[in-house]
Amino acid sequence: MGVSELFDSASVAVVGATERSGAVGRAVMRNLLDDFDGEVIPVNPGVDEVFGVPCRDSVAETDADLAVIVVPSELALEVIAEAGEAGIRNVVVISAGFGETGADGSSRERELIELAERYDLSLVGPNCLGVISTPSGLNATFSPMNALAGSVSFMSQSGAFVTAVLDWAADRNLGFKDVVSLGNKAVLDECDFIEAWGDDPETDVILGYLESIEGGAEFVRTAREVTADTPILLVKSGRTEAGAHAAASHTGAIAGSEEAYEAGLDQAGVIRVERVEELFDFGAMLSGQPLPGTGGVAVVTNAGGPGVMATDAIGDAGLDLASFDDRTHEALAAVLPETASAYNPVDVIGDASTERFREGLEIVLDDPGVGSVVVIACPTATLSFEELAAALTELTDEREEPVAACLMGGSSTAAAAEHLSKGGVPTYFDPARAVRSLDALYAYREIRDRTYEPPSAFDVDREAARTVLERVETQGDNRLGVEAMPLLEAYGIPIPDGEIVDSPSDAHEVASRIDGDVAMKIVSPDILHKTDIGGVELGVPDAEVADTYESLVTRARSYQPDARLLGVQIQEMVDLDDGVETIVGTNRDPQFGPLVLFGLGGIFVEVLEDTTVRVAPVSTPEAEGMIDDVRAAPLLRGARGRESVDEAGVVETIERLSQLMTDFPAILELDINPLVATPSGVTAIDVRLTVDPEKL
Amino acid sequence: MGVSELFDSASVAVVGATERSGAVGRAVMRNLLDDFDGEVIPVNPGVDEVFGVPCRDSVAETDADLAVIVVPSELALEVIAEAGEAGIRNVVVISAGFGETGADGSSRERELIELAERYDLSLVGPNCLGVISTPSGLNATFSPMNALAGSVSFMSQSGAFVTAVLDWAADRNLGFKDVVSLGNKAVLDECDFIEAWGDDPETDVILGYLESIEGGAEFVRTAREVTADTPILLVKSGRTEAGAHAAASHTGAIAGSEEAYEAGLDQAGVIRVERVEELFDFGAMLSGQPLPGTGGVAVVTNAGGPGVMATDAIGDAGLDLASFDDRTHEALAAVLPETASAYNPVDVIGDASTERFREGLEIVLDDPGVGSVVVIACPTATLSFEELAAALTELTDEREEPVAACLMGGSSTAAAAEHLSKGGVPTYFDPARAVRSLDALYAYREIRDRTYEPPSAFDVDREAARTVLERVETQGDNRLGVEAMPLLEAYGIPIPDGEIVDSPSDAHEVASRIDGDVAMKIVSPDILHKTDIGGVELGVPDAEVADTYESLVTRARSYQPDARLLGVQIQEMVDLDDGVETIVGTNRDPQFGPLVLFGLGGIFVEVLEDTTVRVAPVSTPEAEGMIDDVRAAPLLRGARGRESVDEAGVVETIERLSQLMTDFPAILELDINPLVATPSGVTAIDVRLTVDPEKL
Repeated sequence: MGVSELFDSASVAVVGATERSGAVGRAVMRNLLDDFDGEVIPVNPGVDEVFGVPCRDSVAETDADLAVIVVPSELALEVIAEAGEAGIRNVVVISAGFGETGADGSSRERELIELAERYDLSLVGPNCLGVISTPSGLNATFSPMNALAGSVSFMSQSGAFVTAVLDWAADRNLGFKDVVSLGNKAVLDECDFIEAWGDDPETDVILGYLESIEGGAEFVRTAREVTADTPILLVKSGRTEAGAHAAASHTGAIAGSEEAYEAGLDQAGVIRVERVEELFDFGAMLSGQPLPGTGGVAVVTNAGGPGVMATDAIGDAGLDLASFDDRTHEALAAVLPETASAYNPVDVIGDASTERFREGLEIVLDDPGVGSVVVIACPTATLSFEELAAALTELTDEREEPVAACLMGGSSTAAAAEHLSKGGVPTYFDPARAVRSLDALYAYREIRDRTYEPPSAFDVDREAARTVLERVETQGDNRLGVEAMPLLEAYGIPIPDGEIVDSPSDAHEVASRIDGDVAMKIVSPDILHKTDIGGVELGVPDAEVADTYESLVTRARSYQPDARLLGVQIQEMVDLDDGVETIVGTNRDPQFGPLVLFGLGGIFVEVLEDTTVRVAPVSTPEAEGMIDDVRAAPLLRGARGRESVDEAGVVETIERLSQLMTDFPAILELDINPLVATPSGVTAIDVRLTVDPEKL
Repeated sequence: MGVSELFDSASVAVVGATERSGAVGRAVMRNLLDDFDGEVIPVNPGVDEVFGVPCRDSVAETDADLAVIVVPSELALEVIAEAGEAGIRNVVVISAGFGETGADGSSRERELIELAERYDLSLVGPNCLGVISTPSGLNATFSPMNALAGSVSFMSQSGAFVTAVLDWAADRNLGFKDVVSLGNKAVLDECDFIEAWGDDPETDVILGYLESIEGGAEFVRTAREVTADTPILLVKSGRTEAGAHAAASHTGAIAGSEEAYEAGLDQAGVIRVERVEELFDFGAMLSGQPLPGTGGVAVVTNAGGPGVMATDAIGDAGLDLASFDDRTHEALAAVLPETASAYNPVDVIGDASTERFREGLEIVLDDPGVGSVVVIACPTATLSFEELAAALTELTDEREEPVAACLMGGSSTAAAAEHLSKGGVPTYFDPARAVRSLDALYAYREIRDRTYEPPSAFDVDREAARTVLERVETQGDNRLGVEAMPLLEAYGIPIPDGEIVDSPSDAHEVASRIDGDVAMKIVSPDILHKTDIGGVELGVPDAEVADTYESLVTRARSYQPDARLLGVQIQEMVDLDDGVETIVGTNRDPQFGPLVLFGLGGIFVEVLEDTTVRVAPVSTPEAEGMIDDVRAAPLLRGARGRESVDEAGVVETIERLSQLMTDFPAILELDINPLVATPSGVTAIDVRLTVDPEKL
């Protein structure tokens, strides 16, 4: 659907237009009449004209590019159908009373979706504030404030937040290209808008406030393409348990897991922002400044203390305080007074003029290790903020390095800040906010340089895997345990030699075939903690295998007489001395689909919660990144004098499990615990999974 | 020294007063003449009058309460001496050119300190912006802006930051009682000011920007007393490695460790703030609002999205979103429209008037689980921010619960925000900033409720301990190892039965006396990694002890022929199966003195860096808190089916080590590694320490 057409509409019909005081239909009409370059057509049956513009009885009588609907929800469906019949393809439904309000509303929303499909409508809402596009002055909202023009496009799942941001942004010289209040997202959602803005040459940055993302996988695909050219910054609220609950009751969305959002947004190349102020701090930086060439940050300040604050923020952000080369030190020393600091942070000291700032800046920008600069100015008798602002915009026009400005004052900085904003240089009071905004620029540079490899496609035995999964149909239990080890084998994940047997003689036969002593475990879907009931014996010599079989079965029967016994597993012993126990698991998220989890076994998962998650399917670099993520990773890499384990084997297991989950939607969750990693390879020792037979 | 007198001065002499444009002496004179209620006396030999005020030739000719010195540093010492001779006790040295500028300056600063001592001066600076006290309009600074009146007192180690804050605060209705630019802190430092402000009934909150704290232990003592009545909020910069380096070059202070500051400030009851904006966000809340009675936060909003943002922030802060009781739900449902939410966060929805906000607020404030409220208002057609502000200040006058207001807009909220500020209700744009500020209020409530127990005083054998430490004098090496185990014993820390012997027969004799097999280790200050050279044997039966002695010595001699061998340690075996290895260590920080460290041994310290630190001496609750701090604490407390270890024994070991470090300044650092903790007790297996013989 052509979302961009919606913003480019040349004529807008307002269905429910009125002059009645306090009415939404009045506010929308006024906003359009005040600023819109195109045609405004009021629609309201019993009315001759609205604010002097002749009124139509029906939307069908207009040939508007866009219909904005503000009539009560009971009437809205009819209007949408009329618009669709009349060939109008772009509709904004401001009216509330749909999915957000109980059963009647939900059924109305379903009808709305059907109408949109029937007429192929680009439909925003329902239950929203409307849309804004500044190039044509299109303000089809009932917001008391319009947006300033700019190159940032903004979407919000909260209409009130849009009004708040417009009011607030006007004071801060923050401009927008398009703004959309997403409302219930019945038809158009975040995915449609990031796609459209990705193609929009007038949108430099996409900002969003979202409480849910419905189609996680589609969002990841789309965002990856868009962020190759256009940064996306999102506040995704409902991060905490209480917040997720509040968001679900606000939007009606099923809460997905925070870890899925965290992983999915990162994999999508989205810069996730926690604080709404930072959304606009970072947006201003990304819309106005070039990307840095190198990682070093220089600080030029007329006051030592704020220079220290900036340096702390550089450390916090994981950026580098640039080390200058000798020429830079010498050049700085030549132009700065003796008590100044020619080292980074450069202190041009309190009596600095704009000229001294400029000289210092030019010198540090010539240093090859400097990729960006933070300029900090405190109020002094010798400095004019306005002159400094003029010098900075001039400098940024000549240079290719990004610059962040801290004007550390209040109203005395206003004129300078406005001048800088117009020149694309963002300004901040707190040096830390300036540095964090630069960090967003560095983060986007890393994202833009990403290449997304396709996931590996391993040669697997899908039929054998399906056969294992089908056991749930005969077994009458959707959970499978160690009896499902052949599933892993079918997907090329190494398992120990072994078999499940149901007699002492078979047990002995299998054990004789296996080198060395064996491990023996009772196999029963009904016994969860096998070790606790003595259902596991390790290191059993061949001669004792038959007797051990009997005693395992006897213990199981006496412990839990009604448990179904599937037999006893005879397994090759895996030497754990050189090995590290890891866990590779997967489950499914309502929004993002299959997730894979990795962590070290035992205390690392259970006590320290040292795990990491990705949305599947994962590529090799993504799986490698999972190992880097866990704090205990050094234990796999030869910490404390041990030999490094086969990390590539762990990575491949993650990828193979990712493929398994992608191939079989019937697998709801699956854990390999432990996957033992040794220097010579990996082995899955045990598995548990839950299968939905209806999806087989 | 009477710092409060300084702020209460009724007459001020300005030494170096002038009308010369751009001069600091002119700016100070103008600031004083503009606003000061008291007498201003210019001092400048060659000048008749300054701005119409007759000028004196020397400070000695005045009987000022306070002398402000702006003359060049070369002349400043003489002026200070004259002032002292003349009986002036309060001096502010604005002049630079002291400790911050090389050898000459440092020597001048030492002379300044001597003069201050000789004349018992309360001296601020040198190298500072000056001081402000708003009740009398005293502005003895060269700042272009004066402070608004208020109940916050503020100190800053950066003068430029003071000018920045004054400029910025004026726009935000932030008022101050006293402001001081600390400069080089040659005489008066942060400790003197927090002490004075702690006694000052007009100061409700103390804010500070510091780059160093010289006397850590004194600061902790003083701050603990002050924070029983008056909250202290600090930005301590130089948190990161690069930041600490920048701070050291700015202030000349030796960088203490960040972990010492972190621990020391927390133990002192100081609320440490990372972002300068939050210093003032939190300060406004703590100066204007009462402390909450209970931990639950209610949110009342006219927009769902910002309600979710606030809820996330509540979760992030570790606060509780209050659960309302049934009466509250019913009462809310009775006054709110059907589509509103009567659950927390309470959504009074977009068409809410001030009256509906007020009704909702009164109902939630009556709920016993609600200790504080966040009120969020987005701009709507039906709401007047001014009316809401009036209602909120009225409500806060009647109620005892703290209220934070989010007025989510720009200039349209300015009048309302000013009204609220005057009424002591802080306002924010971002709901998360409002919540974090409330969190500071909760944090202070917890601090005010603290009781600081004195450290336990164990009955120890100091003489025996000293004898062990004196070994470094005979041994010719400042490091001691396992031969220092009796030091721990002298301080009541359990060690295994054992002895160091120097013959196979003695070895056998000692081993026979010890129950069961023994552990044997080579003892040499020159062999660091004993295990690597085969210098350790565990589980040696008595019969093999003599032979093992020989082979340990042979191996050591062949590995490192020149190593001094002190003998072989014969030690009772400690059963590690039920035990958890921990580490208890100590070292000394240049600012805070002795620190104690605790963590679990092995990977937990080496790989996961899961350790915690306190400034010694620690009390029992502080030592207990250290165990709570480490992420791996559950491993001591019966995680994964193990028996809980003797946590009290670990706590007591920490306290005894703390006492040892306090008793013997000669111990520079000491590690007990491992301290094995089992269900039945703790045992120190090995020790290493470094001793400064000159301090013995």
